[in-house]
Amino acid sequence: MKATIYDVAREAGVSIAAVSQVMNGKGKISEERRAEILKTMERLNYQPSVIASALTGKKTYTLGLVVPDISNPFFAEIARAVEDQGHEMGYSLIICSTDNKDERVERYLTLLQQKSVDGMIIGTGMDNKDMLKPIMDRAIPVVMIAREMQDLALHTVVVDDFVGGRMSASHLIALGHKRMAILAEHSKVTSSRERVKGFLHTLGEAGITLSDTSVRNCSYTVENGKREALSLLEQPAAVRPTALFCCNDMLAIGALQAAKQLKLRVPEDVSVIGFDNTILASVTDPPLTTIAQPIEPMGKQVVDLLLMELKKRSQDKQRVVMRPELIVRQSTGAPATQG
Amino acid sequence: MKATIYDVAREAGVSIAAVSQVMNGKGKISEERRAEILKTMERLNYQPSVIASALTGKKTYTLGLVVPDISNPFFAEIARAVEDQGHEMGYSLIICSTDNKDERVERYLTLLQQKSVDGMIIGTGMDNKDMLKPIMDRAIPVVMIAREMQDLALHTVVVDDFVGGRMSASHLIALGHKRMAILAEHSKVTSSRERVKGFLHTLGEAGITLSDTSVRNCSYTVENGKREALSLLEQPAAVRPTALFCCNDMLAIGALQAAKQLKLRVPEDVSVIGFDNTILASVTDPPLTTIAQPIEPMGKQVVDLLLMELKKRSQDKQRVVMRPELIVRQSTGAPATQG
Repeated sequence: MKATIYDVAREAGVSIAAVSQVMNGKGKISEERRAEILKTMERLNYQPSVIASALTGKKTYTLGLVVPDISNPFFAEIARAVEDQGHEMGYSLIICSTDNKDERVERYLTLLQQKSVDGMIIGTGMDNKDMLKPIMDRAIPVVMIAREMQDLALHTVVVDDFVGGRMSASHLIALGHKRMAILAEHSKVTSSRERVKGFLHTLGEAGITLSDTSVRNCSYTVENGKREALSLLEQPAAVRPTALFCCNDMLAIGALQAAKQLKLRVPEDVSVIGFDNTILASVTDPPLTTIAQPIEPMGKQVVDLLLMELKKRSQDKQRVVMRPELIVRQSTGAPATQG
Repeated sequence: MKATIYDVAREAGVSIAAVSQVMNGKGKISEERRAEILKTMERLNYQPSVIASALTGKKTYTLGLVVPDISNPFFAEIARAVEDQGHEMGYSLIICSTDNKDERVERYLTLLQQKSVDGMIIGTGMDNKDMLKPIMDRAIPVVMIAREMQDLALHTVVVDDFVGGRMSASHLIALGHKRMAILAEHSKVTSSRERVKGFLHTLGEAGITLSDTSVRNCSYTVENGKREALSLLEQPAAVRPTALFCCNDMLAIGALQAAKQLKLRVPEDVSVIGFDNTILASVTDPPLTTIAQPIEPMGKQVVDLLLMELKKRSQDKQRVVMRPELIVRQSTGAPATQG
């Protein structure tokens, strides 16, 4: 019969509280007594239930989500959508935020393994794909959201970033813009790379080329977007871009702030278009034209894929590509003066 | 001597990978072989290192954070600040979002216990304070941020919500407002209750009273704030409030949206003041006057208190009350017409 905490307490001649304290490594208890209790636990082969379930490989009904920055509303809204769907399906969610740093990504991947999550949802980019290997070796199901690891066979839910970039470009070209610039994220962010590619592709089709200095890689903060936008918009009106394509809403807010600081009117002097359609986009001054990602359906889909994988491992991995949508608000318009 | 995974594999006559698979409950392995491996583990008293450290009460260098809604930028920014300070001090952070529901709060508290966090930071309200008892009984250090549990002796970091409410009222009174209304959060949210109290207190000092229907309890979403604001602002101009005090920035955004829908000018027809000073406040149209909480210092402080508690339990609990700050932007002004 399985030993209980009562058995341990009786055998060791101590209170249940004392046994509990030893298990938690807390409370005032002498080293001597602590050692004796531990020995009793061992002798009775006592395993607290949680630990026992980890030992026997039982499901924990917990999922892990790794995002690059929880203070970016896009990832906060993704986390919310994943939590809601997880809850719906009877799973709890552990969220980890990595500050986009590989070292923290690795630490959190290890942590989630140690915490015995049933599966992981990764929404953060990483330079080194080998970081995922130990997890996949341990056969913990992993799915990706909003990011891709093309060398690895993983279920992936993304928006069509390339098409999103094209939509932005088509919108700006249709408004009459010719001199444009891009605020991109760090080059390791796959989604941002695709958005830039799509944007440039459509520009190319229209016979428009951008100078090398017109594509700026930013870290993902508002401040960084503002700094890069300032350096672009401080140029003389004759060479200044009339429109900025920003690879996320945070960078677009930086661009709006830069325009405000330089007393440039949006959209008359400079049009700004974002990406994500987070809560931010609907509240900015002026409200932000942006490319919407279907955040709720993406969160639902990624949980469903992970649970499918938990139920039955399959060699066939899906790459679910959702359609982005251009949301026109007031931050884009025809350029006031043609360059 | 402690048994290793090699001992188990050798004794059971299987590969290390097979033992690992059994521990993780994954991989293709027959039930028979699985049972045999488990029996061998038991016989050798084998405990994988993570589980062993949980058993012997070693530190896991992991903290847990429970927030009501990660998609509210206030809590996302708190989470970011806590993660940063935790990282600085060598701790990882597990974030859980409860959707403000007691049932989910309880589930996540249990989960964090099971996952052997060294300590917990609670930023969510709960109707039933008994939910925290099992954790405190297990001697897991708990600290509160942005919420209070006054019946329990816990380190707590809050902003002075009462003073924040007073600041809002003083600002609106100074601008000449007499007919005001409040969008409050759910009555179980202690911080919101204090803000309302402070606001009403200062109104009382100025001889201004609010009608019973002027204090609206909302859920914490933008949509809900908008609905309540609409019902307040749809009233005839002679009785309509000229200013709305909103107990967080999300509700203030709902109020701005309601004003826009009713074609009321902000601040000429209605002033709106928020609380929190999240990223939202600086980007709204018009930019939002709000009461700033010092989010970064609060996150740092709460981690420091928790680590202090981890190092040495103390009966003396601190209640750190930080000073809020009125940030005047363009959403408040003198009422155009006196009621």
